[in-house]
Amino acid sequence: MHKTAAYAATSATSPLAPWTLERRAPRTGEVLIDIRYCGVCHSDLHTVRGDWGPMDYPLVPGHEIVGHVAAVGEGVSRYKVGDAVGVGCFVDSCRACEHCKAGEEQYCAEGMVGTYAGRDRSTGEPTQGGYSTRITVHEDYVLRIPEGLPLDRAAPLLCAGITTWSPLKHFGLKAGDELAVVGLGGLGHMAVKLGVALGANVTVLSTSEGKRADALALGAHAFEVVGKDPAAGKKLARRFHMILDTASAAHDYNLYLGMLKVDGTMVLLGMPEPTLVGAGSLVMARRRLAGSLIGGIRETQEMLDFCAANGVVSDIELIDIADINDAYERMLRSDVRYRFVIDAASFGAA
Amino acid sequence: MHKTAAYAATSATSPLAPWTLERRAPRTGEVLIDIRYCGVCHSDLHTVRGDWGPMDYPLVPGHEIVGHVAAVGEGVSRYKVGDAVGVGCFVDSCRACEHCKAGEEQYCAEGMVGTYAGRDRSTGEPTQGGYSTRITVHEDYVLRIPEGLPLDRAAPLLCAGITTWSPLKHFGLKAGDELAVVGLGGLGHMAVKLGVALGANVTVLSTSEGKRADALALGAHAFEVVGKDPAAGKKLARRFHMILDTASAAHDYNLYLGMLKVDGTMVLLGMPEPTLVGAGSLVMARRRLAGSLIGGIRETQEMLDFCAANGVVSDIELIDIADINDAYERMLRSDVRYRFVIDAASFGAA
Repeated sequence: MHKTAAYAATSATSPLAPWTLERRAPRTGEVLIDIRYCGVCHSDLHTVRGDWGPMDYPLVPGHEIVGHVAAVGEGVSRYKVGDAVGVGCFVDSCRACEHCKAGEEQYCAEGMVGTYAGRDRSTGEPTQGGYSTRITVHEDYVLRIPEGLPLDRAAPLLCAGITTWSPLKHFGLKAGDELAVVGLGGLGHMAVKLGVALGANVTVLSTSEGKRADALALGAHAFEVVGKDPAAGKKLARRFHMILDTASAAHDYNLYLGMLKVDGTMVLLGMPEPTLVGAGSLVMARRRLAGSLIGGIRETQEMLDFCAANGVVSDIELIDIADINDAYERMLRSDVRYRFVIDAASFGAA
Repeated sequence: MHKTAAYAATSATSPLAPWTLERRAPRTGEVLIDIRYCGVCHSDLHTVRGDWGPMDYPLVPGHEIVGHVAAVGEGVSRYKVGDAVGVGCFVDSCRACEHCKAGEEQYCAEGMVGTYAGRDRSTGEPTQGGYSTRITVHEDYVLRIPEGLPLDRAAPLLCAGITTWSPLKHFGLKAGDELAVVGLGGLGHMAVKLGVALGANVTVLSTSEGKRADALALGAHAFEVVGKDPAAGKKLARRFHMILDTASAAHDYNLYLGMLKVDGTMVLLGMPEPTLVGAGSLVMARRRLAGSLIGGIRETQEMLDFCAANGVVSDIELIDIADINDAYERMLRSDVRYRFVIDAASFGAA
């Protein structure tokens, strides 16, 4: 066992605080990873605060993990000590259902095992995430970070990156397609970068002018303010092949659905409150309102390789672990461009 | 010009009453059709009563038209006098947009010209529908009724048939797939028959036991009562590849979305009130909530040919035109199995 520094929540209402956990020595097929960086995802905050249901505590969040292999268990074939690797939102699944077999472990019929707040399938122990300095994971759920990707800026690819990449690929975005992105946060800024890199014409849709310069700086080809002026909705009618909707607060889907071409798809990536949908928006142009959940291991590796080949990384603000509670407060105010990433070296100082 | 007996609404609140209209002699490419039968669609009622917006009157509804070619204009190549033909929900479109070129005229960028309550693209005159004894239509918007299909029971295929066929094909139903049908009316009963003929395992979902015997008699493999007992929703979780939702009154989409497999699609065919949709139902299993609008001319012909080859016809109740107002009242009470069809011979007696 390896004593490992971490930050944990001890209840839904307490701030994250230093904690020590034990990481197991690698079992057959597993690797022990020295964590270098871990991205800070909105899900971390929602989970520790119990927004998505009651949790067991202490709880160590973090599922945008990048580090180096420190030890390998028996039979490990893909990784060796020193390799740069990543761990995303899950660390195990049943491996036997049609979804696991298809490489879409995120839809596992028995439920994927979350990187944190999950249950180890053999021991039943709670899983603990990447706000820590080590983690032990089976190699089948470990990603290779390709050379050329800076480790800190690669970390958010493990969740924000794959969550936007997977629907772009699954729902068939093609070069030259018109893509709109709703919401310019951690997910949205990756949607813009990946959409641009895939050759789409990318428009950021926003409810105010504030993010125009940022959107264009990220590579978006256009920026449109929508929501107040009905003329904007009309101007953009039937414009887009696909809309990635990353907004997590309640908003009007119908406004955006009307901007889809015939056969266009709007993909929800966030979890807003139940929202009214008018059938006409869907029926009159055979549109689709879909959802998408992170991505499988195989496509996460494809995404990482694509990002390395195309120079796509996340825009981050590197923080010390001691600043995590402040970072949460700033995240709640959307005061982050565009992802906080914890420098695991700061655990030594904590 | 041909003086033609018809039944028209003269206002949103008046019953349909005898009227006479002029049908033009066929222009180049057009055929004059002696109407034998016309199905009675819910849309007819909604349109004449102004439920979907203000209308011009007199208004002759009817877009499930079957008859025989009585005369052909210059250049008509596909049809000759005496041929059994049909006319569905539209009689013209721009022919130039990507959708018309793709044979999906129902999504025409300039708007299809409805069989009734539309505007002739050259003269601007209002179009008048199939509650009449003749109609003149360009051959490109005329369907061939294959031999072996009884004309009266084929009439509803022109709307109820194609409206259910098109999404089954477009969204990729395969033999052996699990298909659910919500709502067992004019559309629903065709969805069951077509789904069965396409080799799917068809389940009718209903809020009460009342339609069990009917559903099974139509060929459905299963019947499930849903909505009151949460256990039913659980039992059917992740069961279906596709759900065709033909209900037109407001209902809970989320109940049904949870019954879709990963990557499953629920297709709205009716136009219920705006309805709350929970993002979780879509996101957690990459489900899609889609809509679909009738179908194009090419696929309508494919559907008719399929129905002739597979013995699929509508269950109808043949009525005289003089009974149309009673039929509307019965339709509002869902007291029809499953489509009223007007016998145009009854215009002579009217």
